[in-house]
Amino acid sequence: MKKTVLIVYAQPEPTSLTRHLVNVGVEALEGQGHKVLLSNLYGMNWKATFDEHDFQSRLDPSRLGFIAESEHAYGNGLQTADVEAEQEKISAADAVILQFPLWWFGMPAILKGWVDRVFAYGLAYGFKGAGNKYRYGDGALKGKRAMLSVMVGGPEKDYSPRGINGPLEQLLFPITHGTLFFPGMGVLPTHAVYGTGSITAEGVTAAEEGWRLRLEGLFEDALIPFRSQNGGDYPDAHVLASHVAVGQSGLLAHIAGRQLAPRSAETALQPIDIGA
Amino acid sequence: MKKTVLIVYAQPEPTSLTRHLVNVGVEALEGQGHKVLLSNLYGMNWKATFDEHDFQSRLDPSRLGFIAESEHAYGNGLQTADVEAEQEKISAADAVILQFPLWWFGMPAILKGWVDRVFAYGLAYGFKGAGNKYRYGDGALKGKRAMLSVMVGGPEKDYSPRGINGPLEQLLFPITHGTLFFPGMGVLPTHAVYGTGSITAEGVTAAEEGWRLRLEGLFEDALIPFRSQNGGDYPDAHVLASHVAVGQSGLLAHIAGRQLAPRSAETALQPIDIGA
Repeated sequence: MKKTVLIVYAQPEPTSLTRHLVNVGVEALEGQGHKVLLSNLYGMNWKATFDEHDFQSRLDPSRLGFIAESEHAYGNGLQTADVEAEQEKISAADAVILQFPLWWFGMPAILKGWVDRVFAYGLAYGFKGAGNKYRYGDGALKGKRAMLSVMVGGPEKDYSPRGINGPLEQLLFPITHGTLFFPGMGVLPTHAVYGTGSITAEGVTAAEEGWRLRLEGLFEDALIPFRSQNGGDYPDAHVLASHVAVGQSGLLAHIAGRQLAPRSAETALQPIDIGA
Repeated sequence: MKKTVLIVYAQPEPTSLTRHLVNVGVEALEGQGHKVLLSNLYGMNWKATFDEHDFQSRLDPSRLGFIAESEHAYGNGLQTADVEAEQEKISAADAVILQFPLWWFGMPAILKGWVDRVFAYGLAYGFKGAGNKYRYGDGALKGKRAMLSVMVGGPEKDYSPRGINGPLEQLLFPITHGTLFFPGMGVLPTHAVYGTGSITAEGVTAAEEGWRLRLEGLFEDALIPFRSQNGGDYPDAHVLASHVAVGQSGLLAHIAGRQLAPRSAETALQPIDIGA
């Protein structure tokens, strides 16, 4: 069935690997019969900074409160046109892909600013004006899929389970879990290309093939099994129930299925591989 | 002894808690005899997006490669004046404090853009043009201290060891470890104020007192014991030696001292409290 896919990307150089894979992805997805929407943040000269100019008609002109003004602007059709256009693309999309080079273990500022500005109160948080009632698996974006496609300058071993940078999927948890799953999207394991600082022609070809293959599973592959807030694992909507993820804490406790491994001091410490 | 402290902050509203604590900090630090430098990112209208305008005289005018152009600009005095001014402040500082509201479990885009643009090749990475030889505890910023001061809208329990958002210090690892420790700074445990979305007058007073107290230890308190790349724990400069952090993997394996706890299935799974 024909789907709509939004690709939001943050790389100004047309010959970069990021841009190359954006093009590969468009071709692959359209080849599958899907419709592709694009947000070329650099090309759009996207305004990165979330500030008073985002609120054209203020609830409180005397004091800038971002949450209150975001709720007011989103709820009353008072947002800026650029933000509204992005929200409409997300609404139209069955899947959202964020494609970017990893800068300081996170998104380039222009992409972080896309999140800061577009993920409004009422849409991405505070759904139905109900505070945190609908979040983590529930919310306005429920039913959509999301995936990060990241170009990583360094070698894969630096991001391996005991690599010096930390495992990539754990470094990206604030984005996958805290930003994409938070408003309800199902999140696929991150797709990473490593060693892009010195990639060869063969490496580029392999990256193209890897990305095409990955996109074939965009609507079929298993999601990261993040635990839903309202699925029973968090009875008070804040903390894991005592019978869930017994003996575990930290980021990985919020991923289901880790209990299935035989528990011992050694194996319990190994995070499951939630990477690509 | 008189020290110099740089506070970089990202909140445009003068009556916000962030700005209030910036003022409290300036007063407290100056009261201790220190000199304070300020970077008011919103007030400076800081350019958040790292782009071609950062490179006024290009190494390669035909293709924008950020790392190569950053090295070229930093090494040849070709950076923009705003970036140079920030680097001079960092050089002059004995401690750097980043003070901001937590947005989507990370820095506001304007602050991420301060990192993206100011942390140049040759300064914050690629020190001495030696690739990754000097990083994680080694580098141009070695000897300086750094701390995050974060205003968190949600309740502390959501960030507790089994809280639904994940522990705050793990969510901030890409910043504390990957951004501040990477170029050599010693990083203090994060200072967080929770529940700022609905803070009372008493809460503000408590936050003031907490921040003043915390700043008394700025140059004395123990740092997060991140493992140094060149200190012996990473013989190949990429992966932990097999005798280090035995049986551990993931972000917390890069913090020393966790081995001291008696090891059992339960205790080994508990991250040490590296929070405030």
